Amino acid sequence: MSDTVAIIGLGLIGGSLARDLHQRGITVLGRDTDRNTEIAALNEGVIHATNGLADARCIVIATPVSDSIDTLERIAPHTKHAELITDTGSTKRRIQAAALQLGIGARFVGSHPLAGDHRAVWSAARTGLFAAARVYVCGTHQSSSAALAAADSLWRQCGAQPIAMNAGDHDALLAHTSHLPQIISTALALVLDGADVDVAQLGPGGRDMVRLAASSPRLWRDVLCDNRDNVVAALQDLQSQLATLEQVLTAADGAVIEKMLERARAWRGT
Amino acid sequence: MSDTVAIIGLGLIGGSLARDLHQRGITVLGRDTDRNTEIAALNEGVIHATNGLADARCIVIATPVSDSIDTLERIAPHTKHAELITDTGSTKRRIQAAALQLGIGARFVGSHPLAGDHRAVWSAARTGLFAAARVYVCGTHQSSSAALAAADSLWRQCGAQPIAMNAGDHDALLAHTSHLPQIISTALALVLDGADVDVAQLGPGGRDMVRLAASSPRLWRDVLCDNRDNVVAALQDLQSQLATLEQVLTAADGAVIEKMLERARAWRGT
Repeated sequence: MSDTVAIIGLGLIGGSLARDLHQRGITVLGRDTDRNTEIAALNEGVIHATNGLADARCIVIATPVSDSIDTLERIAPHTKHAELITDTGSTKRRIQAAALQLGIGARFVGSHPLAGDHRAVWSAARTGLFAAARVYVCGTHQSSSAALAAADSLWRQCGAQPIAMNAGDHDALLAHTSHLPQIISTALALVLDGADVDVAQLGPGGRDMVRLAASSPRLWRDVLCDNRDNVVAALQDLQSQLATLEQVLTAADGAVIEKMLERARAWRGT
Repeated sequence: MSDTVAIIGLGLIGGSLARDLHQRGITVLGRDTDRNTEIAALNEGVIHATNGLADARCIVIATPVSDSIDTLERIAPHTKHAELITDTGSTKRRIQAAALQLGIGARFVGSHPLAGDHRAVWSAARTGLFAAARVYVCGTHQSSSAALAAADSLWRQCGAQPIAMNAGDHDALLAHTSHLPQIISTALALVLDGADVDVAQLGPGGRDMVRLAASSPRLWRDVLCDNRDNVVAALQDLQSQLATLEQVLTAADGAVIEKMLERARAWRGT
């Protein structure tokens, strides 16, 4: 494992990673577009400095997806000491393509930790965020064994469970497990808004369903656009299920409705 | 408040109500279609007996919605001592119409506690389930002041917050706040099932979105069929939002996507 880790972007993910690594005695360099965040991280001793990133053995880009490729392009010429360059974004194909194009494919391995919530800020960062969390680790076809091992080790040190997966499979899977749920939560919130329903009128089940609607619009705009081919396909599957449900409800076909509810429950597990 | 309360149906709602009232020193009579549930409730001393319901001053029908009207019809001739007959179902128009037709409209007040989860069984029943929960209390146009006051008092004794509402408004509101979320969760589970995604692959946000899919199929079949006019209307609003989202995603119109995400978040509150 690298003796110095540089983290660019000290929000919930980058900040929590910094806290975990710092706690394990690793020297963390950090940078954020928000100067107050940098000052807070320095004052708490979580990061050692905001400069010298070019000397780090491991560089983590933990900015929003929209900035990650720009960041990668900017730092690529200054990463000769890094054996691993990784990111933490929710989509993996586009940044992998950028890494290959920049000629750093051997040292690049994408990461996507399944952790965090809708508060994407330093003040929400905490140690242990990645404990037992899945982290998808997506090597390029050029990734060196050293880079793959370093990515695996980085996340294991935080208590996470790295899972190797290629970027295409990752983006197709995440369209279903994460991006579609986000869209649905947003769509439900818009319907309730239009019907003049107040959040306080929801029961516990309804509240679960609109929690994701509080996520960062800018961050999600980029994730959804980035993965739109997969997301649109998943969205069409959903619309087809909803159209069937509307049809059987209109026909008051209780037997079919019950079968659909049963199939969903069997999948979900009780 | 009634000195004896009879509860028909000792599942999560009826059982928890029995526990709360018993704890407050009220004599509870109880009945359930499952003899083992009756025995468990008797053995724990939560209910005093399974007979003598006709003498109760307050009768609560806490069966699934599909059985509640049959139950109401069966007991109606034997309720002359009851100053309040209520139910706990998720829809309110149909049972209210039945009560009026049975000539017990003056003593009937529908109730709908916003509490509970997908485990609709006695073993999940617990004291405090209704603490701070909203309970919609829907009087008929014939409901007596005594019946309305008794319903209000019944729920306040359990720490709940009764809210008076007419049955039509209730069913329209619940189509949005509860029935639509249930359908969405079911539809998402069916999409994920079809895409061979495993529940374990979901992050915390995705897991929130499929929690309701574990709800009782039989119970929900009846609720959805019962309120299908309102539910179909809400479902059409949702499909319209999803169609718009699909359209702007296909066009990669980031500005519109971000605006929709922002509008949803503003409604939801951060």
